[in-house]
Amino acid sequence: MITSSANSQIKNMILLKKKARERSRQDVFLVEGIKMFRELPAERLQKVYVTPGFLGRPEHERLLEDCDYEVVSEAVFESISDTKTPQGVICVVKQYHYRPEDLTAGAAPLCMALENLQDPGNLGTIFRTAEGAGVTGILLSKDCVDLYNPKVIRSTMGSVYRMPFYYAEDFHGVLRQWKKQGIGLYAAHLKGQRTYDREDYRRPSAFLIGNESQGLTEETAKLADHYIRIPMSGQVESLNAAVASAILMYEARRQRQ
Amino acid sequence: MITSSANSQIKNMILLKKKARERSRQDVFLVEGIKMFRELPAERLQKVYVTPGFLGRPEHERLLEDCDYEVVSEAVFESISDTKTPQGVICVVKQYHYRPEDLTAGAAPLCMALENLQDPGNLGTIFRTAEGAGVTGILLSKDCVDLYNPKVIRSTMGSVYRMPFYYAEDFHGVLRQWKKQGIGLYAAHLKGQRTYDREDYRRPSAFLIGNESQGLTEETAKLADHYIRIPMSGQVESLNAAVASAILMYEARRQRQ
Repeated sequence: MITSSANSQIKNMILLKKKARERSRQDVFLVEGIKMFRELPAERLQKVYVTPGFLGRPEHERLLEDCDYEVVSEAVFESISDTKTPQGVICVVKQYHYRPEDLTAGAAPLCMALENLQDPGNLGTIFRTAEGAGVTGILLSKDCVDLYNPKVIRSTMGSVYRMPFYYAEDFHGVLRQWKKQGIGLYAAHLKGQRTYDREDYRRPSAFLIGNESQGLTEETAKLADHYIRIPMSGQVESLNAAVASAILMYEARRQRQ
Repeated sequence: MITSSANSQIKNMILLKKKARERSRQDVFLVEGIKMFRELPAERLQKVYVTPGFLGRPEHERLLEDCDYEVVSEAVFESISDTKTPQGVICVVKQYHYRPEDLTAGAAPLCMALENLQDPGNLGTIFRTAEGAGVTGILLSKDCVDLYNPKVIRSTMGSVYRMPFYYAEDFHGVLRQWKKQGIGLYAAHLKGQRTYDREDYRRPSAFLIGNESQGLTEETAKLADHYIRIPMSGQVESLNAAVASAILMYEARRQRQ
């Protein structure tokens, strides 16, 4: 059992928790909690760290059967955990490497393109909702928050394992490619003339969502085929990015039923 | 200018930031940032605290013209702020005291009933989205997170000033009263048979939303007239509470257009 925070594995776990660069260099990320451990595809798992309390439960012992795991004292575990009430299990998981074409699978792809999204909770929630809505893939501009940030991973509630995504060096290049493939690009935009429910999303479609305070850059908005508007009553100027995304993705799902 | 954290006003501001009980006893809450200050109805404002940097801008000076304000050094301001990058203005605002009947105004009320919601960001986001969707009022069970928590207030983005709400001692009593008034109660429920877009929300309607991990209690769910389901693809078991609320509220708005 590891009982010291000076242990080299523990030091590395703390690095992986805090530094996007280290996660990228080692090509791994951390997932925490029993739900995330249960849903994890076996071939992606590199190593598991558990507390004696977690290991002590018979049902957990079975889950750990074929895993390379290490027991860590409760006190040391707290230093590698990113939550207030740790569940006693953290996994080191191999990063994903999708290609842009993995995002547009099937006859009528439904994609999200996120530009400079900054809030970890928003990004994770968009992944979770996207899986529920039947989205085929998520494109991210390079300046979006790191998907492998533990807060983002947690709010995906496991959808990170199943939703193809791609951080594009050339975000506009991928959008242009989508246009060539006949995917309609819909920009959620305050200038939008048509309300979002007047478009036909049964055809191949992608929604462009911008930064939480600035919205889409003009350059990105220009690539859109259609500007759409989510109508707002009262004095509301905009909706939360994850909420706006959810309304659009579920309108597409409703039409596709 | 206040330059010491030992100042009694500053001590009180820290209490108001941290303690729901103090906010309730003094019948006030804090709002922070320029947007929240601008949108604040004048008659609710009790006092404003600003930094010299904030006061120094001519456009801010005009905003402060008829206000009872106090200048606080930047260092002391940080101790009363709830944000990482304070904008230099915090207001003490009188709490709201709506009656249950204020929530169901108009010919076809559209209400939310939130049971034991715990996440501050979720609650604030629901208020913001609700205003956008044309909701007439929000009912909260006593065990919901405190609306006047600074994190909740911040995520309402000002909707707290405009959305009638009521913390019910007798949550079920109010729901029963709504039923008597002919308001249809729709419970978002995993057991729901009909998908959410198959119901007619042009009639008086209320959506019941439960706790983030446990959902609605059985007792509350029993009061519903209809169980509805938001369909989910993939392995998604549930949606974030603010996201589920948004999908339902905007479906109602879409039908009511």
